[in-house]
Amino acid sequence: MMISPPPRSNGSRTLIYHTFPHNCPKRFSVSSYPLKLALTHTDAGSAARAGIFETDHGAVETPIFMPVGTRAAVKALRSRDLHDLGAQIILGNTYHLFLRPGNEILRNAGGLHRFMGWDGPILTDSGGFQVFSLQELRKMTEEGVEFQSHIDGTRHRFTAENVVDTQRAIGSDIAMVLDECPPALSSYDYHRDSMERSMRWARRAWEHHVRTPMPYGHSQALFGIVQGGTFADLRARSTELLMETGFDGYAIGGLAVGEPTETMYDVVSMVAPLLPPDQPRYLMGVGTPQNLLECIARGIDMFDCVMPTRNARNGSVFTWSGKVNLRNASLRDDWDPLDADCDCETCRNYSRGYIRHLFNVDEITGLVLATIHNVRFYLALMERAREEIRAGRYSGWMRETIERMQAEVPKS
Amino acid sequence: MMISPPPRSNGSRTLIYHTFPHNCPKRFSVSSYPLKLALTHTDAGSAARAGIFETDHGAVETPIFMPVGTRAAVKALRSRDLHDLGAQIILGNTYHLFLRPGNEILRNAGGLHRFMGWDGPILTDSGGFQVFSLQELRKMTEEGVEFQSHIDGTRHRFTAENVVDTQRAIGSDIAMVLDECPPALSSYDYHRDSMERSMRWARRAWEHHVRTPMPYGHSQALFGIVQGGTFADLRARSTELLMETGFDGYAIGGLAVGEPTETMYDVVSMVAPLLPPDQPRYLMGVGTPQNLLECIARGIDMFDCVMPTRNARNGSVFTWSGKVNLRNASLRDDWDPLDADCDCETCRNYSRGYIRHLFNVDEITGLVLATIHNVRFYLALMERAREEIRAGRYSGWMRETIERMQAEVPKS
Repeated sequence: MMISPPPRSNGSRTLIYHTFPHNCPKRFSVSSYPLKLALTHTDAGSAARAGIFETDHGAVETPIFMPVGTRAAVKALRSRDLHDLGAQIILGNTYHLFLRPGNEILRNAGGLHRFMGWDGPILTDSGGFQVFSLQELRKMTEEGVEFQSHIDGTRHRFTAENVVDTQRAIGSDIAMVLDECPPALSSYDYHRDSMERSMRWARRAWEHHVRTPMPYGHSQALFGIVQGGTFADLRARSTELLMETGFDGYAIGGLAVGEPTETMYDVVSMVAPLLPPDQPRYLMGVGTPQNLLECIARGIDMFDCVMPTRNARNGSVFTWSGKVNLRNASLRDDWDPLDADCDCETCRNYSRGYIRHLFNVDEITGLVLATIHNVRFYLALMERAREEIRAGRYSGWMRETIERMQAEVPKS
Repeated sequence: MMISPPPRSNGSRTLIYHTFPHNCPKRFSVSSYPLKLALTHTDAGSAARAGIFETDHGAVETPIFMPVGTRAAVKALRSRDLHDLGAQIILGNTYHLFLRPGNEILRNAGGLHRFMGWDGPILTDSGGFQVFSLQELRKMTEEGVEFQSHIDGTRHRFTAENVVDTQRAIGSDIAMVLDECPPALSSYDYHRDSMERSMRWARRAWEHHVRTPMPYGHSQALFGIVQGGTFADLRARSTELLMETGFDGYAIGGLAVGEPTETMYDVVSMVAPLLPPDQPRYLMGVGTPQNLLECIARGIDMFDCVMPTRNARNGSVFTWSGKVNLRNASLRDDWDPLDADCDCETCRNYSRGYIRHLFNVDEITGLVLATIHNVRFYLALMERAREEIRAGRYSGWMRETIERMQAEVPKS
C-alpha cells in the first residue's frame, strides 16, 4: 500500500512556519546535551542501523525497546526486574504522572528517577497522545489543549511550554514536545492544520526547553515529533521544520492509530531517510515484534509500546515461534518453558503448565511472570537485532524470524 | 483470662481411644524421617527455644514463620523472592491445590516443588480448616467430610487417608493430618466429640502415611494436630493421644478462630509443655507479630499466617514501630522507607511516598513491594527472635519489641 497522496482538490499548500527562525536560542549548558547517536554499524541490505547514545543516566544501545512505565512503574515489575531484564531505558507518561502523583510531589521526590528507584535513562512522552484520545474532554487552541482529567474531571491545560516544565519536574533524560496526534481517518486539511500547529508547538517547546534549567543536575534532551498523517508532503514538511529547529532526536508520531500496517511502514520508509543520520529516530507506540523488525529495517532506532506488558497481563505471551495464550487448557500438562530459547527468569524456572495454573486461579504472580517474559522477549529481540546488524545479516535474519513467529505454535 | 474449665454438668469424660494401639506400624524407609528438632538454646526467662530441624529440601531454623503459598504461589511473589527474603519453609494449602491444579497435574509435574519452582521445604495443611469453613457446603461422617467445591460446586470427600494421598501427590516435606476445626463458640460436648473424631482420623492418617510411599524420592514428615477448643482436659487428652501414636511434630489447631487472644495464649501455655521437647511445635494460622512473639515465649517453634501477605495487598504494612496504612494521604510527601530498620528490597530502594502513590493508582507493583516488605518483616522478626533466644535475652527483648510496635507511628 502506498502512502496517501495529498488530495488534488486541496489547493493550498502554503505553509505557515515563517515564524520559525533558523538560529535557535542557546541552551542552558547545565541541562543540555546535544544528544548524538554514534552509529556503529549499518546494514547493507536495509536501512537498519546499530548505534549508541549517551545520557547522564547511562548509554543506550540502538535499536532499543523502551518498556512503558505509565505511572512511575512498569506494570507488575520493579526497578530491579528492569535491570535484570536488560532494560536500558524506560518510558514514563507525562499525562499520567502530571495527574498522579503530580509535579509538586515529583519535584519533592527529586524527580522520577529517585521517586521510582530507577537509575537508568527515562524518556517521557509529552502527554499529547493521551489528551487527544480524550475526545469528549478536550478543547484545543493555538496556546495548547484544555482537558478534563479522566480520573476526577478536574480541568487542566497543556501548552507547548508547560509540558516542558512538567517533564523538567519529572526529570526525564529525554523529553518530547507537545503534539496533536490526529485520528487516522482525519482529512488532509485537518492533518495539515494539525501538523502545522504541532510544529509551532514544537518550536515553542524548544525555545522554552533551552531557556529553562533542569532541577536535578543531569541533562535532558528534547525530541521533536514528525506528524502529517499518511500524507507524504505533510510528513516531509514536518520533518523539514523540526530539523530547522534542530532537536536532539526525532520521533515519528501519529502512527499505529488504526492505519493499515503497510501504510505505517510506508510512512516510516519515507520519513526516516529525511532525518539526520547521527540522531536517534523513535517510532512512538509501535508495536508487535514484527512491526519492530520491519521498522528497524526502515531505519528506526527506538520503540515503545504497552503490548508486551498489557498482553502479558491478559495471558498472551510472545515467543520466537509466535504467541501463546496462557488461558489455553492444552497447556495444563505442558512442562516446557514458555519459550525454550528465552533466558528470562520465568523461562529458566517455570513451566507453561505452572503459569497457566497461575492465570487459571488469578494469582498476581502469574501476571508478574508473564510480564517478565514478555518484556525480556522484546528486549532480547532488540539485542538480537543489534547483533545481526553488526554481523551484516539483518535482512535475512529478519525474514526468517518473522516467518517463524507467524508459524503455528506446535502443541506440546 | 483462664482457659475454660469443662462444664460441670457434663458427666461423661469417658474417652473412646481404646482402638489406638501403642505399637505403631513401621514406615516405608524411603519416605520417612523421623523428623527431630535439635534444640540449640532455651530461654531462661520463658519457654522460648531456638533449634533446627532437617528436611530433604534443607534445614529449618526455629522459631520460624512460613509464608503462605495457598495455590502454589505466595501471592504476588515468585520463588526467587522467597529465597531472597530468607524464607526457609513455605506453606501450601491442600484444599486449594486439590481443587486446582489437582492431584493428577501435581503428580505429572513431579510434585509441588517442581511445579512452583521452589526447592526449599514445604509444609501442607490437610485441607480440613478450609473445608470446615464451608459451613453450608459440607457433611461430616466418621469416614471424613464431604464438601462442595467453592469454585464450581463439584462434590468431593476428604478422608483421613486420602488427604495423606493428596499430600503425597503434592510432595510436601511436612504433611498434616485431617482434623476438624470447630467454631470457637461450640459447646464442650461438640468439642469433645469433634476432638475424639479428629484423633481417630489422626491415627488413621498416620497408619496410612507409614504404609504409602512418597513418589518423588524425598521424605515426608507427618504432624498431628492438637484439638479440644479452649477446654484444658480436651487439649490434654488430644495431646496424649497424638503422642501415643508418635508424630514427627505437633501442631496446635483450632486457635485464632475468634477466641480472645489471652485464651489462645493460655491454651498454648497449657499444651506446649505437654509436647515432646525434641519435636517441632506448630501453632496453625497465627498471627500478628505480637502473637508470634508471645507464643514463642510459650514454646512454639513454627507459625503460618496470611496476615503479612493479605495485609500487604490491602495496603497495611508492619514495621518495628507498628502498622502503616499505605492509603494514608499523609504519606504522599514522605521520602523515608517503610521501616528504616528493614533490610528488604522495598525499604532499600523505595520511599513511603512512592509506595503510597502505587497504591493510590492501583499499580500491581505496589502490591508486590508491600508484600516483599511484610514477608521480610515477619521473617526478620523470627531471625531476631532466634538471635535473642541464643543470646539469652528473649523475654526482655520481646517486651520492648511489643511495646514499640504498639506505640503510635510518628508522622514524618
